[in-house]
Amino acid sequence: MSDRAGPIITLTTDFGLQDGHAGAMKGVMHCIAPAARLVDISHHIPPQDIQHGGFVLMTAYAFWPSDTVHLIVIDPGVGSERRAVAVETTRGTFVAPDNGVLSYVLARERVLRAASLTNPQYWHHPVSPVFHGRDIFGPAAAYLATGVDLTALGQSLTEGELVRLPVPLPERHADGHITAHVQHIDTFGNCTTDVPGDWVRARTHWQVTVGDHVIDEIGRTFSDVSTGSVVALVDSTDFVAIAVRNGNAAEALSLSIGSVVALSPKSALPGMPS
Amino acid sequence: MSDRAGPIITLTTDFGLQDGHAGAMKGVMHCIAPAARLVDISHHIPPQDIQHGGFVLMTAYAFWPSDTVHLIVIDPGVGSERRAVAVETTRGTFVAPDNGVLSYVLARERVLRAASLTNPQYWHHPVSPVFHGRDIFGPAAAYLATGVDLTALGQSLTEGELVRLPVPLPERHADGHITAHVQHIDTFGNCTTDVPGDWVRARTHWQVTVGDHVIDEIGRTFSDVSTGSVVALVDSTDFVAIAVRNGNAAEALSLSIGSVVALSPKSALPGMPS
Amino acid sequence: MSDRAGPIITLTTDFGLQDGHAGAMKGVMHCIAPAARLVDISHHIPPQDIQHGGFVLMTAYAFWPSDTVHLIVIDPGVGSERRAVAVETTRGTFVAPDNGVLSYVLARERVLRAASLTNPQYWHHPVSPVFHGRDIFGPAAAYLATGVDLTALGQSLTEGELVRLPVPLPERHADGHITAHVQHIDTFGNCTTDVPGDWVRARTHWQVTVGDHVIDEIGRTFSDVSTGSVVALVDSTDFVAIAVRNGNAAEALSLSIGSVVALSPKSALPGMPS
Repeated sequence: MSDRAGPIITLTTDFGLQDGHAGAMKGVMHCIAPAARLVDISHHIPPQDIQHGGFVLMTAYAFWPSDTVHLIVIDPGVGSERRAVAVETTRGTFVAPDNGVLSYVLARERVLRAASLTNPQYWHHPVSPVFHGRDIFGPAAAYLATGVDLTALGQSLTEGELVRLPVPLPERHADGHITAHVQHIDTFGNCTTDVPGDWVRARTHWQVTVGDHVIDEIGRTFSDVSTGSVVALVDSTDFVAIAVRNGNAAEALSLSIGSVVALSPKSALPGMPS
Repeated sequence: MSDRAGPIITLTTDFGLQDGHAGAMKGVMHCIAPAARLVDISHHIPPQDIQHGGFVLMTAYAFWPSDTVHLIVIDPGVGSERRAVAVETTRGTFVAPDNGVLSYVLARERVLRAASLTNPQYWHHPVSPVFHGRDIFGPAAAYLATGVDLTALGQSLTEGELVRLPVPLPERHADGHITAHVQHIDTFGNCTTDVPGDWVRARTHWQVTVGDHVIDEIGRTFSDVSTGSVVALVDSTDFVAIAVRNGNAAEALSLSIGSVVALSPKSALPGMPS
Repeated sequence: MSDRAGPIITLTTDFGLQDGHAGAMKGVMHCIAPAARLVDISHHIPPQDIQHGGFVLMTAYAFWPSDTVHLIVIDPGVGSERRAVAVETTRGTFVAPDNGVLSYVLARERVLRAASLTNPQYWHHPVSPVFHGRDIFGPAAAYLATGVDLTALGQSLTEGELVRLPVPLPERHADGHITAHVQHIDTFGNCTTDVPGDWVRARTHWQVTVGDHVIDEIGRTFSDVSTGSVVALVDSTDFVAIAVRNGNAAEALSLSIGSVVALSPKSALPGMPS
């Protein structure tokens, strides 16, 4: 038995699993790359939610072997002029529509090579104008897994040509306060902000304000507080998050994507109880 | 490394994934066929919806290698006298309850051999009267994947003995008009009719009427129209479909399975604007 | 081709699949155990529902090869002092938080060896205080699959040290009546009680009372009754269950976890119609 049963391709889509879309795409990929191992990250990205899908991908890709091919199909512009791309980095190769879904990856990894998927030799024919996942993206990922060189897939692109959406950024004010924004809400209702863990680990004490609610400390884990209480902590994605122990913070605090969260270093709050 | 890590079995069920049903069935199959690769098409077919499951299977099976075993368990009649069958075609072998879930496959593929799964040697014992997926269908698919001949599984059947449900059929009228029906609604609310793409590709211009709504053209893709607008197009399953760009057509137009859609060739509409 | 493509690890979690949690955990595991095959049992256990997850695991694990590693992460106490454990039995090795999620397994299988996952050499670093699935449990399961000995993972534990939640138990009264409780409700609304099939197979005739509803017989399968009617039967998990043919018993009879169901042997009911 070899150490590896076959090259790995991860799949992240908004297809859902009530239909045959994912099954058809996987079938095409298995025909092209019979030895590849297709592993689902998610087919349950909210429909056409590029931001959500990009964030989910960011929280997963870095944990995979660096020769993994990551296939991401969240493609509201299918059939329009948006490009289809393959992007090689030191931390994996990404195949996706060039619609910003790779923005988080591009903000973190160095691009080695990129190509537009223009070579019809590596498409599945006939190409449906409404399902490039099955006919263009999936085949490209499968061919890459079999060892086809990225440059064969189509016209070379520079990193600067790739579409990027603004990645949410917190504001650090001169007096040490931070204005943060909710950038992701997970299945449990935990709300991840855009403040990296490093920003708050430098200091011991922070006060966190969410609407009317004041949290007096950034804790370490959910069980720092009693069941039903609000806690701020650095979550598994290494961003500051707002959670309710064994509860749903998004519902309890009426938070949604973009909601503002204020962080204040405690020494900057003279007279505040600590 | 061989080209193929093992024979492939695809799984399509209505079990859902909140319970151990799929996990138990896969365990039995792995014990029988340790080298097989089990790939989920869907465990989220709406409960006991034979029509939906049959349609999903149709949109996926043809994209897989022709030596794939497709296991389909949507089985409202479990424990009754309905047969359990394996059906070999030139495009894959299908294991399913003989309740019509294979109707779309039978309408499209030539049956080479078929058998009733009556040989208890290829069952998992004890057989639960309420879970033939784990104890009869799954084992049959796994044994087929190991190379057991279909004829060993039980009594031979002719193609004519297999149960078929009526596959939805559009009506083509003498004057060129087509009466179509919605036969599937996907996760996005896109509504697939029963009109094959070939029927409309022969002509350039069609007017599509859905209730009070008139669509003046069959487009090529979602982005032919602005966000929120209704579009008719040939979808990835190669049927005419009604969609709303970045929206939900079933909700917007109150469409359900069986809803009538009218297609009129434009030259047959004198005086109509084109 | 070998008989087995690689050691098997099954996954049962409450992560859901709208986020990258399962994808990140699988990535870490693939890096550690490139040849292992990760098979999902479920990522859709209701959030933090230890009882539900333990029951689902019980209905699945026994059907897998006995050298399978079963990874279960339902972990409301993450970051608290609850132990992380690996438990070897004759029917598989289980990796889970020591919070009672293994209670059903411990009630059925003999423990050969157990260990607390205290050895940081087998963790993924840095360890997030809120995601031990990715950083402690997943790695332990992967290392076990590569052949690392369970005793290397940390401090040995005796069977008696493992946390057990009370497993629901029916009461058998002196006159033969049984007081049962609903212990699981599946996707279809079928309600599984805590009465083992063997208890009722010994007698032919039982009357089952659920609230105001009286069922005159324990049947064999759903199709013993007409569509929409209530049926009692021994389900695929080998417990007595209450179902509605092609319907939802939990809704129809207002049943929830813990609801009481009464079973009366018919000979103990003089004057009752049989």
